[in-house]
Amino acid sequence: MTMDLTFLGTGSAYPSPHRGASALVLRTEGECWLFDCGEGTQTQLMKSQLRASRITKVFISHLHGDHLFGLPGLLCTVSLHSNPVPTQAPPCVDIYGPKGLRKFLRVTLGLTGSQLLFPYAVHELETSPDQSPPEGQLADELSTERGPPHPQERPGRDIAPEASSGCFLLFQDQRFAVKAFRLFHRVPSFGFSVQEQDRAGRLNTELLKEMGLKPGSLYGRLKAGEPVTLENGRVVLPSEVLEEPIPGRKICVLGDCSSVIGEGAATACGGADVLVHEATLGDEHREKAVEHGHSTPKMAAAVALACGARRLVLYHFSQRYKPGALRKEGDEDDVAELKRQAEDALQGSSVEVTLAEDFLTLPIPLKRQSVSA
Amino acid sequence: MTMDLTFLGTGSAYPSPHRGASALVLRTEGECWLFDCGEGTQTQLMKSQLRASRITKVFISHLHGDHLFGLPGLLCTVSLHSNPVPTQAPPCVDIYGPKGLRKFLRVTLGLTGSQLLFPYAVHELETSPDQSPPEGQLADELSTERGPPHPQERPGRDIAPEASSGCFLLFQDQRFAVKAFRLFHRVPSFGFSVQEQDRAGRLNTELLKEMGLKPGSLYGRLKAGEPVTLENGRVVLPSEVLEEPIPGRKICVLGDCSSVIGEGAATACGGADVLVHEATLGDEHREKAVEHGHSTPKMAAAVALACGARRLVLYHFSQRYKPGALRKEGDEDDVAELKRQAEDALQGSSVEVTLAEDFLTLPIPLKRQSVSA
Repeated sequence: MTMDLTFLGTGSAYPSPHRGASALVLRTEGECWLFDCGEGTQTQLMKSQLRASRITKVFISHLHGDHLFGLPGLLCTVSLHSNPVPTQAPPCVDIYGPKGLRKFLRVTLGLTGSQLLFPYAVHELETSPDQSPPEGQLADELSTERGPPHPQERPGRDIAPEASSGCFLLFQDQRFAVKAFRLFHRVPSFGFSVQEQDRAGRLNTELLKEMGLKPGSLYGRLKAGEPVTLENGRVVLPSEVLEEPIPGRKICVLGDCSSVIGEGAATACGGADVLVHEATLGDEHREKAVEHGHSTPKMAAAVALACGARRLVLYHFSQRYKPGALRKEGDEDDVAELKRQAEDALQGSSVEVTLAEDFLTLPIPLKRQSVSA
Repeated sequence: MTMDLTFLGTGSAYPSPHRGASALVLRTEGECWLFDCGEGTQTQLMKSQLRASRITKVFISHLHGDHLFGLPGLLCTVSLHSNPVPTQAPPCVDIYGPKGLRKFLRVTLGLTGSQLLFPYAVHELETSPDQSPPEGQLADELSTERGPPHPQERPGRDIAPEASSGCFLLFQDQRFAVKAFRLFHRVPSFGFSVQEQDRAGRLNTELLKEMGLKPGSLYGRLKAGEPVTLENGRVVLPSEVLEEPIPGRKICVLGDCSSVIGEGAATACGGADVLVHEATLGDEHREKAVEHGHSTPKMAAAVALACGARRLVLYHFSQRYKPGALRKEGDEDDVAELKRQAEDALQGSSVEVTLAEDFLTLPIPLKRQSVSA
């Protein structure tokens, strides 16, 4: 199963002609999961190889405009480009994000008379006062919409953190477990962890053939974990003929933050294959970064180390950092310097650093190692 | 006084990489007035020669997303790029549009914690049931926000049409009178008419010199319409020394529509120098256009003729019409055909037709003719 991550916008604060506002897509088996949706995301999608109609889930890290203002328009355009099958109810688009998101969509879609050809549900994450300065908290009267739901809105869940882990379980199925965890920012912010489930190892077909078992449905049953009885009465256990399970991949995407809150991030991001972390400003601007609830490369590197991540991807750069290709001689700010700062901080570790740019696609290869390795 | 019109987005339905969503700017003496603000307008602005910080007034024709979703982000970016003078209160940005717009901004700016460095006021136009099919009307409970105003929100007016003309007087000062008028669309839509006030004609300086009056402050008083008494006791009347007044220019911008409602448009747009009218689809798709509340070139031409406009500018093209430069051989839809259709419909008249493209700037020259001509 191929998986990749495409950055649609890597700029902070606002979209510019050289850096889109925050948005990235995790693609897996043709499904697209969108993380954040700054203004212009739908246009960035059109410029990319991805298809808007494949978006089935959306995760909004926090309610700042540069992560959110593109969402109503994106949903409208997904709808315009969808091809509903008349005999089949279109699947519901699930949208996860902080409390207040449901009202945001209800009001923006409602006032603009935007009809969608598919249902959507907003699942709101409970925020806590330690996630932001007091002025970043939304009063209940602001974040709760008392008006009727949008015609295509389906009831969403209100999700509280699990007391044991501090994580928010968003959903879990045969393929994935997806969790959120709390971050500190000027407004309550969240990170997301996508844990692919471990998959059955390869069948040892040579051994099966020796046992007299020919390729067919019994192979499938063994791979699915069922024992199989041969004609001679012998019971073959899956563990006899399956190689070590293939461990699932883990991709973590953190929203804007100057630090994590509680144990959630460490629990959810432990051993991440890819950890996407903001680095709005260089280490020399650390004070300013923290004042605005943001991180520098060194701060991002510390999170990657604490989580035992394999790869740290930096994004969400101040618009002062032009993409490498557009940088002119004499320009003061060099985005490559952000990478060097993270690498310096990670010296001696095996964490690799990647600098995201708009339209970068990062393949996330299957792991070859066994779970027990 | 120079005046020009810059198209930032000429596409309908959604922004695409080749056509932005609806937005255009009327620039006059360095001030920018924005008409509609689809998603991505702020990025289009950055790509243009205009400066976001010069925007002092915004006019929203109707509440569809492709005309509105860019507004919260644009205001935030205008704020980020503003340079407030510490000793001076920043001027209020006046925003005009249909009922519901105040709530839209209050909720989008409020939920996203967007602080602006300037105050803004939303002046809402009363809508009427004949402006759209019943399903396009916004229920009062949807369009009225009961929550507290945004910290930078100032009280706005609720504007009703004048019974005599059917026009909504938005404001009037020494330079301009700006009115709105009703259109029919899937949701209530408006057009706007900007009437520059007539200006005093040139001073006949030869005559003044013959009278013994030297250039100086008395010239200014005469030009401002005041009589002046010479040293010899003679009273010079402005009418004696001023040439014919220079008539003001009139620029009209219509929002999405399949027709005008009432007499407002004819009153407000009579003799327009420039009439900007949508032409979403070609005449061969008239039925579909009207079904969606839109116009074809022939329909736009009829409005231009009825108003006695001098120039008809077509915009708001279906995204199926690529800009001329991007059109490939074999492409079925040719935007140039829309211009031909309007020209055919205007044969025998003196109305000129212009096809808008993103980033087209149309100068609006001073009129040379006198008012009485």
